[in-house]
Amino acid sequence: MFKLYYAPGTCALATHIALEEAGAPYEAVRVDFGSQAQRSPEYLAINPKGRVPALVTESGTLTETPALLVFVAQRFPAAELAPLSDPFALAQLQEFNNYLCSTVHVAHAHGRRGARWADDAAAIEAMKRKVSATMTECFELIEQKLLQGPWVMGEQFTICDPYLFTIGTWLEGDGVDTGKLPRVIEHRRRMLARPAVQKAVAAERTQIA
Amino acid sequence: MFKLYYAPGTCALATHIALEEAGAPYEAVRVDFGSQAQRSPEYLAINPKGRVPALVTESGTLTETPALLVFVAQRFPAAELAPLSDPFALAQLQEFNNYLCSTVHVAHAHGRRGARWADDAAAIEAMKRKVSATMTECFELIEQKLLQGPWVMGEQFTICDPYLFTIGTWLEGDGVDTGKLPRVIEHRRRMLARPAVQKAVAAERTQIA
Repeated sequence: MFKLYYAPGTCALATHIALEEAGAPYEAVRVDFGSQAQRSPEYLAINPKGRVPALVTESGTLTETPALLVFVAQRFPAAELAPLSDPFALAQLQEFNNYLCSTVHVAHAHGRRGARWADDAAAIEAMKRKVSATMTECFELIEQKLLQGPWVMGEQFTICDPYLFTIGTWLEGDGVDTGKLPRVIEHRRRMLARPAVQKAVAAERTQIA
Repeated sequence: MFKLYYAPGTCALATHIALEEAGAPYEAVRVDFGSQAQRSPEYLAINPKGRVPALVTESGTLTETPALLVFVAQRFPAAELAPLSDPFALAQLQEFNNYLCSTVHVAHAHGRRGARWADDAAAIEAMKRKVSATMTECFELIEQKLLQGPWVMGEQFTICDPYLFTIGTWLEGDGVDTGKLPRVIEHRRRMLARPAVQKAVAAERTQIA
């Protein structure tokens, strides 16, 4: 039985959905960001980075969403969540997820976590002001080039889909005009029709438009 | 024959080294950042993100360093650059590389590419001032917890090693006191003793302390 440490509204939802899609045995454990529980000694013993998600497995604890997603796909191959034996196709999948973690998630984080990168209050405000533009730019690339449709990688549902869906739930809060992202929003609706997605979303009690 | 698009001083060096370690057939093509060649229509046709690395393969073009590294390992399995059939071990490897791309590389980028995240000149200066602290924090975690030794993942040389080495070449420029990172610096020396590393470094004509 795995333990998934998550907080609502974070990228942990991607792994939460993937575990549901895979039919994996797991328990979801909420980390209370309101009381800064991610900085408690107890949680830092689980994940020294003080972030979510963290997945406790029988072999040890894993972090970082793209790593967790491939792990779930490889541990539960019957769910066919990634083209594991095709180097080029797997690289395309990882390329997409890597763009989400190192560019898109980072763009979003400047709206809430600017203190990571500057100590000056005015600088942190300046970062907030640019989030809508940077997130729009990222999602225009996704809308126009990266999202193949109906799923991210084409006909096959993969671990890219929960990750795009999760980061896409931040768009309205980041001030992005989703009217210009019809394919991304269609993808969101397609995701919300899946029982695994509904179950993970309900468990985290996240509101999604 | 692959084509690796790179620029000196960038994270493309990690893939460059991995291709050498794998004995892969490739040609390295320099993208001249001095003349903003990464923004030229010719290069944007290869990589719409306008960044390096990009790897042109017989099946198409791939980007994003962690994706490229697993691709090289999987395409050239004889080089044994990743524990591809062990889901937990592969996830640990990906967790490390993902930390480098989404946290460490991002911390570094605030010293040179602050305009990605704010338009205000004072904010961009404020970001520069924090790089030495954030890079120090990241590398203390690597020094104390993540680098198992002698290689990142322990006894086995993997695709984590060229990536750590590459990002580690930025430490002095980022104002990090490497005297407090003896294990990271030992890892650098161990890397520089490998013929594949020497060849890639010489080809890029990068100066490394």
